[in-house]
Amino acid sequence: MDLTLPEFRVLVEERLAQSIDSLTWLVQEEFDQVPHEEFLAPARLLLNSGKRTRAAFVLAGYQLATTSACDPAATAGSAIELYQASALVHDDVIDDSPTRRGNPAAHVAFTNLHTESRWLYSPADFGRASAIVLGDLLLSEASKEFQAAAAMVTPREGTTAFRQFQAMCTEVAFGQYLDIRAEQQPLDRSQDAIASALSVLRHKSANYSVQLPLVIGAQLGGGSDELISQLRKLGGLLGEAFQMRDDDLGIFGEPSQTGKPSGGDITEGKRTILLALIREKAGARRDWLDSRLGTVLSDADISQLRTLAISCGARSEHEDMILAREDEARLLLQTLDGNDDGIQTLANLMHELAGRIA
Amino acid sequence: MDLTLPEFRVLVEERLAQSIDSLTWLVQEEFDQVPHEEFLAPARLLLNSGKRTRAAFVLAGYQLATTSACDPAATAGSAIELYQASALVHDDVIDDSPTRRGNPAAHVAFTNLHTESRWLYSPADFGRASAIVLGDLLLSEASKEFQAAAAMVTPREGTTAFRQFQAMCTEVAFGQYLDIRAEQQPLDRSQDAIASALSVLRHKSANYSVQLPLVIGAQLGGGSDELISQLRKLGGLLGEAFQMRDDDLGIFGEPSQTGKPSGGDITEGKRTILLALIREKAGARRDWLDSRLGTVLSDADISQLRTLAISCGARSEHEDMILAREDEARLLLQTLDGNDDGIQTLANLMHELAGRIA
Repeated sequence: MDLTLPEFRVLVEERLAQSIDSLTWLVQEEFDQVPHEEFLAPARLLLNSGKRTRAAFVLAGYQLATTSACDPAATAGSAIELYQASALVHDDVIDDSPTRRGNPAAHVAFTNLHTESRWLYSPADFGRASAIVLGDLLLSEASKEFQAAAAMVTPREGTTAFRQFQAMCTEVAFGQYLDIRAEQQPLDRSQDAIASALSVLRHKSANYSVQLPLVIGAQLGGGSDELISQLRKLGGLLGEAFQMRDDDLGIFGEPSQTGKPSGGDITEGKRTILLALIREKAGARRDWLDSRLGTVLSDADISQLRTLAISCGARSEHEDMILAREDEARLLLQTLDGNDDGIQTLANLMHELAGRIA
Repeated sequence: MDLTLPEFRVLVEERLAQSIDSLTWLVQEEFDQVPHEEFLAPARLLLNSGKRTRAAFVLAGYQLATTSACDPAATAGSAIELYQASALVHDDVIDDSPTRRGNPAAHVAFTNLHTESRWLYSPADFGRASAIVLGDLLLSEASKEFQAAAAMVTPREGTTAFRQFQAMCTEVAFGQYLDIRAEQQPLDRSQDAIASALSVLRHKSANYSVQLPLVIGAQLGGGSDELISQLRKLGGLLGEAFQMRDDDLGIFGEPSQTGKPSGGDITEGKRTILLALIREKAGARRDWLDSRLGTVLSDADISQLRTLAISCGARSEHEDMILAREDEARLLLQTLDGNDDGIQTLANLMHELAGRIA
């Protein structure tokens, strides 16, 4: 199988488009008077962008396990992208984030629709309500799409992978709660800030960004228990590195490339490992940092924050933690018990992620 | 099979408890530091109450189609109850409803937790965020539970029923958007208020309250196309009657019995058929009614609203619409092509619903 990653991403995008189009058909047949394209527009916008990283990890896991045609991986990849879209839409409501992937967040798009249409009551309430329901739709759609992927392989493999997909949804919900709750805790009451940030990071995002897509792909391909267990370990490390780099980009990235405002994590009060490290090392500047948490940062604030993170040594310690994980994952890749195509795909992905700026 | 409805409800409740407990076990094994019972508490409270109406309709459909043991129906019934709990949690966030089934709504419970714990930032924001994530968890859990039900029957029956379950989730999301959007429209721009209210009612609640549980139950039991088609018709009528009675109880019901505040639909600006009828017939009182829409009603307002609805004839016309649907459903029941147990269960349910006050 000589499918390249860019070719696979096109396949995933075709599946995603079909999935949203099928909603339109269903609605046209069954409903009268439903402005379905208006409702789906923010979902289309969100699904048209994105790097398909999670889908690509499904492919890597699948190719490691089997040399069969990769339609089940493209379909499962599409399911996980739908799932992520659902999580992002709800996340942006929760954090009241203005933008996502360089476009207005879904709730903002609905708010703007309300304002432009001069409807009654509150545009912001309408925006939030519509985005909650759109996220629910995408979550259901993700499960439907995964069901289609599972039906493309043997019942045993399909069922195993579907269970893992569902366990992933459960884990992320608990991880989200952990994250929301951590943000509300008084800073000095958090005993071991780094351990606690690592726990949120794992359950809220690291596992579902890398580890579980890899595992699910391998399960769909009928991978051995040995392979699955190796992928859990490798994917765990790589997922942590992935999310920590995301946190670094949250402060040091260019908004035009990340699609998110600089310092957004500080505004949300998000308890990242990087924040814990800066606080630990900030000395007399800690009070200033704490006073910025939960507020919208000015350009001067961002600049001061960057200087502080570098000068106190927190950023480089954080970068070392990322590199250590990437190195260990690269070592594990050498011993991986899977097909060459899969090893090549995974190596390419690891290379992409290590150098990313968005 | 001589299972009574009360016995079936106990089975469903056992499944529901197992489902939530299984989340606890999963979390205890996989996560450190997760306050899982704190997160699940509002879900447990919500799932401990409720009339299990939807689950009971699954049983009726199943018994109409088969005389096999009813575990698949109890499991699918539990899935639909979980799904409904998810929808209620998100609904209450959207409408900012204070109570549900006589208890604080989930977002209010989380808000109270925040206040009592003296955490940082806004209790209300934390309440909403946590409830959004809890609703997501319940939605995933519903799909997992339905998967378990589908695995108890033949693959063909299981797949058919699962697809219908997923189509139900899709339909309700579109119905919700339709509802939210209708609430924001200037009143006089709504051309045909009754037709539009009927469309919201069908897609947001009537179909998933009655019609689809019946159909899904029959599909799980391997029911004939003829039976399924009869149930779509009967269930459609009964679902509309069910929701219209709910709307009547929203104004005329006793909060101590309905678990919801009187006039809550008016406060939310919900465009019910009953509201459309009152507006149509209110004459000079229409301006007063319009001025109350979207506001919290005083006891005096509720009393005036009730008097208006009765004196203008809207309530009795609405009641006639309910009775006409119930009568037609009863006629269809006579010709239903299914097992006696199922006909008996459905007849009992129809009797329960026709006389309900909560």
